[in-house]
Amino acid sequence: MDRTTPAIPSLFLSAKAARTHEQPISYLIAYALANPDLINLAAGLVDDETLPADECLTITQKLFSDKPRARRALQYDTTLGLRPLRHALLKHIEALESKPASAMNLSADDILITTGSQQALYLIGDALLNPGDIVIAPNPSYFVYTGTLTSLGATILPTHTDENGLDPDALDQLLSDLAQRNQLPRVKLIYLTSYYDNPTGLTLSADRRPRLLEIAKKYSQHHRILILEDAAYRELRYDGPALPSIKSYDQTNQYTILTQTFSKPFAPGLKTGYTALPPDLMNAVLQQKGNHDFGSANLCQQILLEALESGAYAHHVQLLQHSYRAKRDTMLEALNSAFCTLHSALTWTRPHGGLYIWLTLPDNTDTSRPSPLFHSALTHGVLYVPGDYCFQPHPTTGHLPKNHLRLSFGQVPKQKIPPGIHRLAEAIREHLR
Amino acid sequence: MDRTTPAIPSLFLSAKAARTHEQPISYLIAYALANPDLINLAAGLVDDETLPADECLTITQKLFSDKPRARRALQYDTTLGLRPLRHALLKHIEALESKPASAMNLSADDILITTGSQQALYLIGDALLNPGDIVIAPNPSYFVYTGTLTSLGATILPTHTDENGLDPDALDQLLSDLAQRNQLPRVKLIYLTSYYDNPTGLTLSADRRPRLLEIAKKYSQHHRILILEDAAYRELRYDGPALPSIKSYDQTNQYTILTQTFSKPFAPGLKTGYTALPPDLMNAVLQQKGNHDFGSANLCQQILLEALESGAYAHHVQLLQHSYRAKRDTMLEALNSAFCTLHSALTWTRPHGGLYIWLTLPDNTDTSRPSPLFHSALTHGVLYVPGDYCFQPHPTTGHLPKNHLRLSFGQVPKQKIPPGIHRLAEAIREHLR
Repeated sequence: MDRTTPAIPSLFLSAKAARTHEQPISYLIAYALANPDLINLAAGLVDDETLPADECLTITQKLFSDKPRARRALQYDTTLGLRPLRHALLKHIEALESKPASAMNLSADDILITTGSQQALYLIGDALLNPGDIVIAPNPSYFVYTGTLTSLGATILPTHTDENGLDPDALDQLLSDLAQRNQLPRVKLIYLTSYYDNPTGLTLSADRRPRLLEIAKKYSQHHRILILEDAAYRELRYDGPALPSIKSYDQTNQYTILTQTFSKPFAPGLKTGYTALPPDLMNAVLQQKGNHDFGSANLCQQILLEALESGAYAHHVQLLQHSYRAKRDTMLEALNSAFCTLHSALTWTRPHGGLYIWLTLPDNTDTSRPSPLFHSALTHGVLYVPGDYCFQPHPTTGHLPKNHLRLSFGQVPKQKIPPGIHRLAEAIREHLR
Repeated sequence: MDRTTPAIPSLFLSAKAARTHEQPISYLIAYALANPDLINLAAGLVDDETLPADECLTITQKLFSDKPRARRALQYDTTLGLRPLRHALLKHIEALESKPASAMNLSADDILITTGSQQALYLIGDALLNPGDIVIAPNPSYFVYTGTLTSLGATILPTHTDENGLDPDALDQLLSDLAQRNQLPRVKLIYLTSYYDNPTGLTLSADRRPRLLEIAKKYSQHHRILILEDAAYRELRYDGPALPSIKSYDQTNQYTILTQTFSKPFAPGLKTGYTALPPDLMNAVLQQKGNHDFGSANLCQQILLEALESGAYAHHVQLLQHSYRAKRDTMLEALNSAFCTLHSALTWTRPHGGLYIWLTLPDNTDTSRPSPLFHSALTHGVLYVPGDYCFQPHPTTGHLPKNHLRLSFGQVPKQKIPPGIHRLAEAIREHLR
């Protein structure tokens, strides 16, 4: 051993740390930062140009010019979140559902404010899951949360998903199988993105919404199996009907959790999400949050309260719908034109909202990060999210589909979408040749 | 069973949720809110009147008037935190330590931005602790974090503490005992508040700082035992020397973690803390934070960057030192005058900074929440924090000291301090009679 630099004893990390891995997206973010000429169709970020800078100037001028209000914004608030904001959000949910809060047995005290909706997703997992517990999720699913669930020690059971979202018959069958094998006590959550899904862009159809709730109730024989409805993209709706949430059918506020966020429809820099949840779960989640941070940034909550009350929020959502609708259309047109000769081999989703389009290549294609296709796309100067990040391996066969990729029209400037798709098409065409 | 309201199956919560309890302070907060005439000497909140409203008006006007900058503030940033803020904080730490970062082997990438320093404390526990692991802490300790550690399943071993802070000889003896019983592999952290402690107001003396580091190294035989140095109150210094941190002696950045915050010296509503930590622990903590929220509110970070760069932060800290120094002096004078006839029975600390004074009553006194004294204080219209919240029971005898109480001159208006202490003195005098 070298005398001058003795060996340093290593750290003993927790079992949870050992289960926690870097999010796969980190590589893509780092690559995009290091290669600014790349057209980044991978980033799930929102559009820089439509961020509400003017609105926030007006709001903060008003807020900080009013001394008592400024002081309230700069002081601590509660772990649950700013009371007037929770009241405003209850009204906002009523408007989205076209239903009074009483019909969902919801009050402002059933709404929790968090550091983005990701924190709510985390805290719900933390309050419910022991290592070995089961979460049922569509396949593919939002990969950041499946990574979080894995870190919490959960087993994720993938369920069949089609163009109308998670398949209720498949869910019923899966729960029935689990019941027969006495595995139902391990099942804690059914997780899904119910609007303009990340990664597929697809929406759970209207008729499936109450059906999923009934299935959760049916199998809640000895303990409650909860539906965790992630509605992050709900307000980025470009066409199609405004569907009520699964939560809206839960008349007693006992079986469903609805998470929403200001990150997508207003500004991610304010990092504020909100969640409506059953009171007994709220109690457990709130105690966890008391240990995590005893309350998210109050200033951001005060800014969002003013945005809601002044109408700036509603106005901004309309602006975003207009802007992203145009970007979605541009991407769909570019896909049509780039792949007109390959139509039989490729399919893609046509989302009514959100930020994502899901591209499916022939079965034997490999889009994964180590694949020649991914490398070829980089060489052509375009970045996508490999679809395999979003899948769970098949529970028995271990099969992991690798013939998909996720495209986003979120952050990429509109005029870069056609050349981006053109570059992607060149890489794919070379590969399929 | 009632047919109209069938019994609802209960939730199966996680083992962690079962270990998590409401913070005891919640009762005090609720009581104070419901009784506005009460003089609240319990609240550890900061002063409303000195919150930087004007500074934040200037900063946000500047920030939101500059379109590219406004957009950066409203967009996502990284999990680690805003790069220019981390660079500014590295310089800030250099100034506080009067030492170049290189002498502590620190770079801006060793600094993590969190949702208040509480989130850093949580994440560090999460990355290091398995149920049954040991954290060594002074007795008394900051009770919010000991509650968090308990929720993570840790065993907290209390160590002897005197007017100079945690006693190195007692720490050495405790670790030696643990080594003899082969319990050293369970020891992960030594936690302490090194400046103007919550609850005692006391500061770890200069000579003990390098000694604690040496002891941590000495017992890091098979794995590293880390010192977690909570320096939340460091910059609220009213007199006495500006001591270097324990971290400043850790030339290789391997054995100590230093957490600081903007909540006390600037504004809690921005909910932003920062932590310097060893790179291998950073890696584990960052992965946890990636799952918790993938980054704290970026807008708050941009505001604080501007506050640091414009000099508004340094100016505001001076103003706070001036204001809290006067409130501390007022409370000490009020204690002197109220208890002049009881001096032999009562002692209290004379802090050089922070927000707290620790009062010690005769051994057989009971200040706890169910006690007649606590009730009598409420009747007289004054609220304090019972000292037993801050203690761990003695590991063998189970003894829990109940003859202390914590007073804060933080949030209470200066003119209410003398009547508050007068009310407290009346309650205590009646009780001791």
